[in-house]
Amino acid sequence: MLEALKEEVFKANLDLVKHGLVIFTWGNASAIDRGKGLFVIKPSGVDYDVMKPSDMVVCDMDGKVVEGTLKPSSDMPTHLYLYKHFEDIGGVVHTHSTYATAWAQAGVGIPNIGTTHADYFAQDIPCTRQMNEEEVFGEYERDTGKVIVERFEGIKPIEVPGVLVHNHGPFSWGEDVHNAVHNAVVMEQVAIMASISLSVNPALKMNPLLIKKHYERKHGKNAYYGQ
Amino acid sequence: MLEALKEEVFKANLDLVKHGLVIFTWGNASAIDRGKGLFVIKPSGVDYDVMKPSDMVVCDMDGKVVEGTLKPSSDMPTHLYLYKHFEDIGGVVHTHSTYATAWAQAGVGIPNIGTTHADYFAQDIPCTRQMNEEEVFGEYERDTGKVIVERFEGIKPIEVPGVLVHNHGPFSWGEDVHNAVHNAVVMEQVAIMASISLSVNPALKMNPLLIKKHYERKHGKNAYYGQ
Amino acid sequence: MLEALKEEVFKANLDLVKHGLVIFTWGNASAIDRGKGLFVIKPSGVDYDVMKPSDMVVCDMDGKVVEGTLKPSSDMPTHLYLYKHFEDIGGVVHTHSTYATAWAQAGVGIPNIGTTHADYFAQDIPCTRQMNEEEVFGEYERDTGKVIVERFEGIKPIEVPGVLVHNHGPFSWGEDVHNAVHNAVVMEQVAIMASISLSVNPALKMNPLLIKKHYERKHGKNAYYGQ
Amino acid sequence: MLEALKEEVFKANLDLVKHGLVIFTWGNASAIDRGKGLFVIKPSGVDYDVMKPSDMVVCDMDGKVVEGTLKPSSDMPTHLYLYKHFEDIGGVVHTHSTYATAWAQAGVGIPNIGTTHADYFAQDIPCTRQMNEEEVFGEYERDTGKVIVERFEGIKPIEVPGVLVHNHGPFSWGEDVHNAVHNAVVMEQVAIMASISLSVNPALKMNPLLIKKHYERKHGKNAYYGQ
Repeated sequence: MLEALKEEVFKANLDLVKHGLVIFTWGNASAIDRGKGLFVIKPSGVDYDVMKPSDMVVCDMDGKVVEGTLKPSSDMPTHLYLYKHFEDIGGVVHTHSTYATAWAQAGVGIPNIGTTHADYFAQDIPCTRQMNEEEVFGEYERDTGKVIVERFEGIKPIEVPGVLVHNHGPFSWGEDVHNAVHNAVVMEQVAIMASISLSVNPALKMNPLLIKKHYERKHGKNAYYGQ
Repeated sequence: MLEALKEEVFKANLDLVKHGLVIFTWGNASAIDRGKGLFVIKPSGVDYDVMKPSDMVVCDMDGKVVEGTLKPSSDMPTHLYLYKHFEDIGGVVHTHSTYATAWAQAGVGIPNIGTTHADYFAQDIPCTRQMNEEEVFGEYERDTGKVIVERFEGIKPIEVPGVLVHNHGPFSWGEDVHNAVHNAVVMEQVAIMASISLSVNPALKMNPLLIKKHYERKHGKNAYYGQ
Repeated sequence: MLEALKEEVFKANLDLVKHGLVIFTWGNASAIDRGKGLFVIKPSGVDYDVMKPSDMVVCDMDGKVVEGTLKPSSDMPTHLYLYKHFEDIGGVVHTHSTYATAWAQAGVGIPNIGTTHADYFAQDIPCTRQMNEEEVFGEYERDTGKVIVERFEGIKPIEVPGVLVHNHGPFSWGEDVHNAVHNAVVMEQVAIMASISLSVNPALKMNPLLIKKHYERKHGKNAYYGQ
Repeated sequence: MLEALKEEVFKANLDLVKHGLVIFTWGNASAIDRGKGLFVIKPSGVDYDVMKPSDMVVCDMDGKVVEGTLKPSSDMPTHLYLYKHFEDIGGVVHTHSTYATAWAQAGVGIPNIGTTHADYFAQDIPCTRQMNEEEVFGEYERDTGKVIVERFEGIKPIEVPGVLVHNHGPFSWGEDVHNAVHNAVVMEQVAIMASISLSVNPALKMNPLLIKKHYERKHGKNAYYGQ
């Protein structure tokens, strides 16, 4: 079932490697079929060079495997939680990409200080709070999703398609999994540039007009950026 | 029309990718035929691996498309403004290359602190001022050109073939588009090296004699650098 | 003798190059056959592109060459010392990988500040003390092993599969040589990310609950990470 | 004439590109035949992908071209000056490699803070003084050699096979041009690692015993490093 979506998720996982966001098996991508109430996710700990589309695992909205012989990625419950609470998203990506992970380790959101950032994210990329003992030793992966959703109170996920999980790393999402991969690449790139910018000028100021302008010329109702 | 120039602009856009200055479609190059009063520019948002020379868009000096089925790059009005005001330039390049963009985000010009810089730029690479509300929400892309030209009052564009647009990224130019690409590579490299140099020694001093010497041995009337 | 192990050690040495951890011949990997009391190590100073499995050198537990026409790596006595004192390890790797070596030069252990680190190392990656005159001008390579073992008093080597040798560089190990290479890649990556994280936020705090959680979900008795 | 040496110099110049030390044509390598009193150097400003061994230029010890149809590299007089004053060297390399150039721009020598450095350089890699007006506007390239030689008063060039020219970039040398390229790679790598180490721990201390030990185990009379 969902052969086309499996192919898409498979390709998205390989794209993470192609874009240099993933070492070993440290990443996972998934996509949801909202109509069927099922999502497809990368299997856990399988090498990218032997992975096949048919290795992708299909889960239902209770997190149960409904097709596939391999275990789903251990981060599956986080993906599930995001799909349940962020209704507009169609794909989720998690990586340990170098700079975005380093900012997550620092516990600091990535500030919106340039038009590259503003083209994709309507504000800073937020960082979640520290998780407590019950969360870490209880349903850890599910509650990783919970602290993300909590952090997005008052923020539209589709306007800020990514987050840093404190001391852990980035999650991104989008209308589909291809878009989620695209946003993962953008997060890494803006994390790199923010590190350099702040080392050049710790007192830098972003022009708030540009934040509005760049996000809207690409995503607003009168968008004119791209074909 | 302008088939040779289209080929040149097409190649210049691919060269930006080859030199690692462009992620996704975040860059554009153009070239002008001063005799005909027309310039050729990359189409907006087209993937580099499917782009063809015939996709290049021809515009006139009012910014109207005179040939081509695709929309020109959204930055077209900036290119146009530069062609109108910098009479000696034949090609323009815009990228979001990592370090030059980071310096632009920092709002700080790239200081001339080494002979690599001095070989190509007769002084610091300047950064434009912040744009105001009228500029950002009016003719934004045209006025991006306007703040660049304003910043070059008293500077010869051909002696300082590049600029940082505040909170945005670098533009470069040259006698032709090949030269503009070359200068984009140089800007990125001097931005990288300036970041490192200043972290090693924030109090570093450039020998002003070397600025004059290096620029003139390559570009002065008694130039002897190169074949 | 030990043809399969030679093949494995040969491949491990090439993997170090493939992962970008080794310039020129600055690295070496070895593996032990505990049953036979013999270990196989890379020859000294041989170029990777001409090296063959049959060039691998077999040594006994006195460090004597029992097979092979080439000299073993000069670091052989360090490998030997580690095999003698760390009974659970089956492979050892030494590199001068950029960031891990830079941290070793700084004389500072790599702090456990993220889940990437915690997935593989149960605590900080320690740095050895400075070696004294007798150690440096006596049995230097053997005593490099000695200061490592000394530093691991109270630490289980298999739970912290790597170390920084002060002013020198990283050593890593594992159940087998493939695992030791894997840990060398992890050390380099966590060294990179720690550098960036600390530049973003020198006062960052790691959640101690995550250290326990991540190490145990992968290595504890109820491990559920991976297939 | 000197066809074998031309081949060697040609290959050395390509190796600089292969090792990532050279952008565009920003580098040059040469080698001397002491018996004949002639040296072979890269031509000026020729693209690497069209360059042939026969393009190499042969010069005599007055800097006159004795064979070749192209102009020698503009840095030829620096190479010549080094060959005249450093009698043990057989090859010279100049690059604008990123980190070594950044340290040169900073005007700071690269400190000997690790065994990677100590394996090749018996002390810090020195940086020359600023050049004065007469030197810069007189025989600039020759006097670039002069300030290098002046800086090496009391230092054996073969024990410290490289230098940073203030605000400019690195020169390296060796017994032959292959060795000079090797040392150029080492200089770049130790420059990278020193930048990182000092950002991790500005107060780091190198063990002086290791400086002596590592240099001597590789280059001393009882050297035992390598085959």
